[in-house]
Amino acid sequence: MKAEIIAVGTELLLGQTVNTNATFLSEELASLGFEVYYHSVVGDNEARLLNLLALADTRSELIVLCGGLGPTQDDITKEVLAKHLNQPLEANEMALKKIVHHLTRLGRPITENNRKQSQNIKGGIPIQNPNGLALGTLYTIKNRSYLVLPGPPVELEPMFLKEVTPLLKKILPQEWVLDSRVLRFYGIGEAQLVTEIEELITHQMNPTIAAYAKSNEVTLRVTAKANTHEKAKELLDQAEKDIQKIVGKYFYGYGDNHSLEAETVGLLKKYHQTVTSAESLTAGLFQETLAKVPGVSQCFPGGFVTYSKEAKAQLLDISLDQLNQVGVVSKECACLMAEQSRLKLGTDYSISFTGVAGPEELEGKSAGTVWIGVSSKKSGTTAYLYQFNRDREYIRHSALMAGLNLLRQQILMEH
Amino acid sequence: MKAEIIAVGTELLLGQTVNTNATFLSEELASLGFEVYYHSVVGDNEARLLNLLALADTRSELIVLCGGLGPTQDDITKEVLAKHLNQPLEANEMALKKIVHHLTRLGRPITENNRKQSQNIKGGIPIQNPNGLALGTLYTIKNRSYLVLPGPPVELEPMFLKEVTPLLKKILPQEWVLDSRVLRFYGIGEAQLVTEIEELITHQMNPTIAAYAKSNEVTLRVTAKANTHEKAKELLDQAEKDIQKIVGKYFYGYGDNHSLEAETVGLLKKYHQTVTSAESLTAGLFQETLAKVPGVSQCFPGGFVTYSKEAKAQLLDISLDQLNQVGVVSKECACLMAEQSRLKLGTDYSISFTGVAGPEELEGKSAGTVWIGVSSKKSGTTAYLYQFNRDREYIRHSALMAGLNLLRQQILMEH
Repeated sequence: MKAEIIAVGTELLLGQTVNTNATFLSEELASLGFEVYYHSVVGDNEARLLNLLALADTRSELIVLCGGLGPTQDDITKEVLAKHLNQPLEANEMALKKIVHHLTRLGRPITENNRKQSQNIKGGIPIQNPNGLALGTLYTIKNRSYLVLPGPPVELEPMFLKEVTPLLKKILPQEWVLDSRVLRFYGIGEAQLVTEIEELITHQMNPTIAAYAKSNEVTLRVTAKANTHEKAKELLDQAEKDIQKIVGKYFYGYGDNHSLEAETVGLLKKYHQTVTSAESLTAGLFQETLAKVPGVSQCFPGGFVTYSKEAKAQLLDISLDQLNQVGVVSKECACLMAEQSRLKLGTDYSISFTGVAGPEELEGKSAGTVWIGVSSKKSGTTAYLYQFNRDREYIRHSALMAGLNLLRQQILMEH
Repeated sequence: MKAEIIAVGTELLLGQTVNTNATFLSEELASLGFEVYYHSVVGDNEARLLNLLALADTRSELIVLCGGLGPTQDDITKEVLAKHLNQPLEANEMALKKIVHHLTRLGRPITENNRKQSQNIKGGIPIQNPNGLALGTLYTIKNRSYLVLPGPPVELEPMFLKEVTPLLKKILPQEWVLDSRVLRFYGIGEAQLVTEIEELITHQMNPTIAAYAKSNEVTLRVTAKANTHEKAKELLDQAEKDIQKIVGKYFYGYGDNHSLEAETVGLLKKYHQTVTSAESLTAGLFQETLAKVPGVSQCFPGGFVTYSKEAKAQLLDISLDQLNQVGVVSKECACLMAEQSRLKLGTDYSISFTGVAGPEELEGKSAGTVWIGVSSKKSGTTAYLYQFNRDREYIRHSALMAGLNLLRQQILMEH
């Protein structure tokens, strides 16, 4: 069933408010089985809203309007929809009682604008608002429904979840479920990942596969449509199997709210391992990223930020002569940093970072040249060379992600 | 001049991404003098996007398209606009070179999808993308212009501010200039700041004053409209004077691309001072934030991440007995951490962080209890107690900002 969302409010068009209602409603509508094809935002303007409603009638079977139900003169959404539907507005006793009660308690007069908030479009199902004064409405005529909700998310969201969802389920012509699974990949760009699984993406309509690039990682969202959750799971399992066969070596975990640091800290905890770090160009970014994960104290005692050459020598007991000889942007330096920091704190692992964040070059090496050292109590110490690009921030973030992944792989290899 | 924004991307219609680009673009377009009357979101679908473009032609003089410039088959924005305009796409040498260079360095193959990102609509002004691979375009025909930008905000925003703004200024028929000044405040919430300068905001139409809340800081954008830049500057100067009179004690600097860390590192450089840090709950966040500022090596040799009690004792030469006695969430611990780290690295200042990031409490102290120590070669050592709230991430970020501000104030006091 085709749906669209129309948010009403000049504040959205001025960039003073973010249209998070469209995001919330889209996600909820999709999970109910509606296909949202359009979002629109229009100001508090009768002519433009009427035009948009006429357009929406040509393309959608569910039209969700949000915002513009407040008590000021600007707020015209319900009046304009009533005009479009050629229906009068009428008082809703329950909503009016609530407004009168609220304003009386505050000792404020009840104005015509206040009354307006309690009105319902004649023939529509009134939707009560537990967190506010504006009444919502669901109006259905023939095969088309109009849903009107207030703008503040704190009012709209509970109204939608509690009151609207059961009503919309009745409108839907059939009962099926849409289930999604998010797969997360590191070490492959969006374009390359999509190229490698192009066949799957192109030829599969159910489940659908969509790729999203994040900073230094890619996620795939696989979405299956079925009669039951069990059947959807089967479809998802098969699609995942097909995907993993091709790009499984880059896969690291599941879920929208997962991350490479959460995965890595999870492995440390699982195997009761500890880690420290000695950071030059990342300057604490690796350690503070580990510490984003609650409960990290089990596996992370602390570590070193050794930005200058002298700090590397002093804090890690490395000879300054040796550093002068090999240079700080070197495999030797990365290995010394990782090993010395691990020995000093007595951890199972240490990851070190040394290189050129830029914009200037260092020791004749260009910005983006980074050595990452891995020291393991079991397997000894080595270091890897990376050449990252773009700006200072991206280079440092790329080094962070590479370091997290090296640690993850090292733990997996040893357990 | 009437404008509208069309965001292209199925992920927006599925509620997986918030349309913050529309918010950013609306604010910027309004400040340039455009009137944004509509936002739309449409999926990666040729027929629907063509319909929307035909509609936009009937109502807007500037049509901004964002998203759908990626390297996958889904990404069709530029192709569809080219079809709508009946113009071919052609390779842009500079953008193609960048893509080839980027992929070659990564050792990845160059696919047809990659090449696509470098294409320009024939006759359009190419807009280079410093943070990504997709080329933007500004195409003008008669009195209507089409602007195409990539979807990731990290690419779109700098392209708009640096490349697009000067081009759009030329399109505007106006004979007046709109100049803005951004004032940055720390230590006051948005609601309180707005309440304190409410008179100014309400009664002043030129310049206009708009407040924006960021994480732990507030900015004011003051925008003046005048015949000349000189006249606009006079208006801005007067408005700033009025604002500073009321909330000047919270002001720390100017500009959209400024930050508390840039201001603080700027002061360290100006006065040839150095800083280190010992971080517990922030775990490197303070140091890595300093290191975001290019050239920080002049004033920051490195420092300590002392997450566990044992690491505090070992790395900073503090007696474990003493720590057990006073507890790690204490003024004494914060002072010892700041002083010992400063003495170890011989810097002019050190800032220390110790407290409870949460979600669990620690030593009977609730999440959000944070001591920040300040040690200065000139003025000795002290520490301040903070009670932050919300989640782990916000508590750690609040501590970071408070630490940066303490350092900034200490330097200013001593110089």
